[in-house]
Amino acid sequence: MAVLKEVKQKKIIMGKLRNGADLLEELTDICKKGNISLGRIEAIGAVRKASVGFYDQEKREYLFININEPLEITNLTGNISIKESKPFVHAHVTLADSKGRAYGGHLAPGTIVFACECVIEILEGPVFERGFDQETGLSLWNMQE
Amino acid sequence: MAVLKEVKQKKIIMGKLRNGADLLEELTDICKKGNISLGRIEAIGAVRKASVGFYDQEKREYLFININEPLEITNLTGNISIKESKPFVHAHVTLADSKGRAYGGHLAPGTIVFACECVIEILEGPVFERGFDQETGLSLWNMQE
Amino acid sequence: MAVLKEVKQKKIIMGKLRNGADLLEELTDICKKGNISLGRIEAIGAVRKASVGFYDQEKREYLFININEPLEITNLTGNISIKESKPFVHAHVTLADSKGRAYGGHLAPGTIVFACECVIEILEGPVFERGFDQETGLSLWNMQE
Repeated sequence: MAVLKEVKQKKIIMGKLRNGADLLEELTDICKKGNISLGRIEAIGAVRKASVGFYDQEKREYLFININEPLEITNLTGNISIKESKPFVHAHVTLADSKGRAYGGHLAPGTIVFACECVIEILEGPVFERGFDQETGLSLWNMQE
Repeated sequence: MAVLKEVKQKKIIMGKLRNGADLLEELTDICKKGNISLGRIEAIGAVRKASVGFYDQEKREYLFININEPLEITNLTGNISIKESKPFVHAHVTLADSKGRAYGGHLAPGTIVFACECVIEILEGPVFERGFDQETGLSLWNMQE
Repeated sequence: MAVLKEVKQKKIIMGKLRNGADLLEELTDICKKGNISLGRIEAIGAVRKASVGFYDQEKREYLFININEPLEITNLTGNISIKESKPFVHAHVTLADSKGRAYGGHLAPGTIVFACECVIEILEGPVFERGFDQETGLSLWNMQE
């Protein structure tokens, strides 16, 4: 069965990321500096270029797709939890090019912000910690029912 | 005019769905078991394969598109309300394939979870109940201003 | 660095938009009539046709892409703030056609609702006001650290 835990809203922060920043690094930095160990993130904006991951479920490895052109971020959805004792951002993005065609995947380093407006809902509750999941090869929350 | 009602945040639950589950059934089960009659859902993750609906606005029927390959869930956005006296999940998904190309639609049964991290915000307020909407042929909230 | 400010949840409203409405105008109207100067919006649904913007980062102008056919809204993510002393909605949409292919961009006027279910989280906090940003040519929040 699914494993879901109750969490509580602690604080909401909203604002903009800076032009030229690495999107994933910037979000991770905000969490590390703010000592945010649990939360959810949403954002819209635009990037100068993007790198997104696709997990090959059979080979158990990420493929990375680089899109070397400006794109709109139509949606970024992510969460914040703990991995190797540090705040860790897991986010997926949906992007659109100059023809309106959409792309997406697991947000990887190398995605460079042009403009980005985000809302981070900081949560409190049980520790959500990532560890190796044998079934999928991914780093998932090691939660017990 | 739009019809919007005030609702209140009651509880937030966050966690993961299990590998192999039917995404829509699993979310619906969580709502039924938890007696959740109002809420919003967001998720990211990956699926082994997907089935999404597109509503033909003229013929007034859903077409279903099956994508028989692994995909990232770049975003799932949904809500929980009541249909035929039971908790009902209405969700849309955006997916991305191994080339980063995005797909999407109305989440249908047959979308099988590989990994999925979700946040469900349980709400309380007036009853949101679905009924047949003559204008669109859809099952919409029968709310009055 | 990123500039993020603390905001607080004031009220949540949830409901449906009317068939035939201009999506961006309807959301803007709701904010103006409700005197909503800060918030976040999420929605799913379907449109009769869409118009989305792509910002040309070099030429510093929006290109608009018109998709003259029915589409599912797989996700709308937006925020509410102040521009020229009035509530202003900035939203991005992800859409999907009858083949499941996804499109997206900056929500522009001319996107006509078929059905739309939305959640607006009204926030309170510091004033988020848009002004011309020299670096990007966009209308961004003129926030100071």
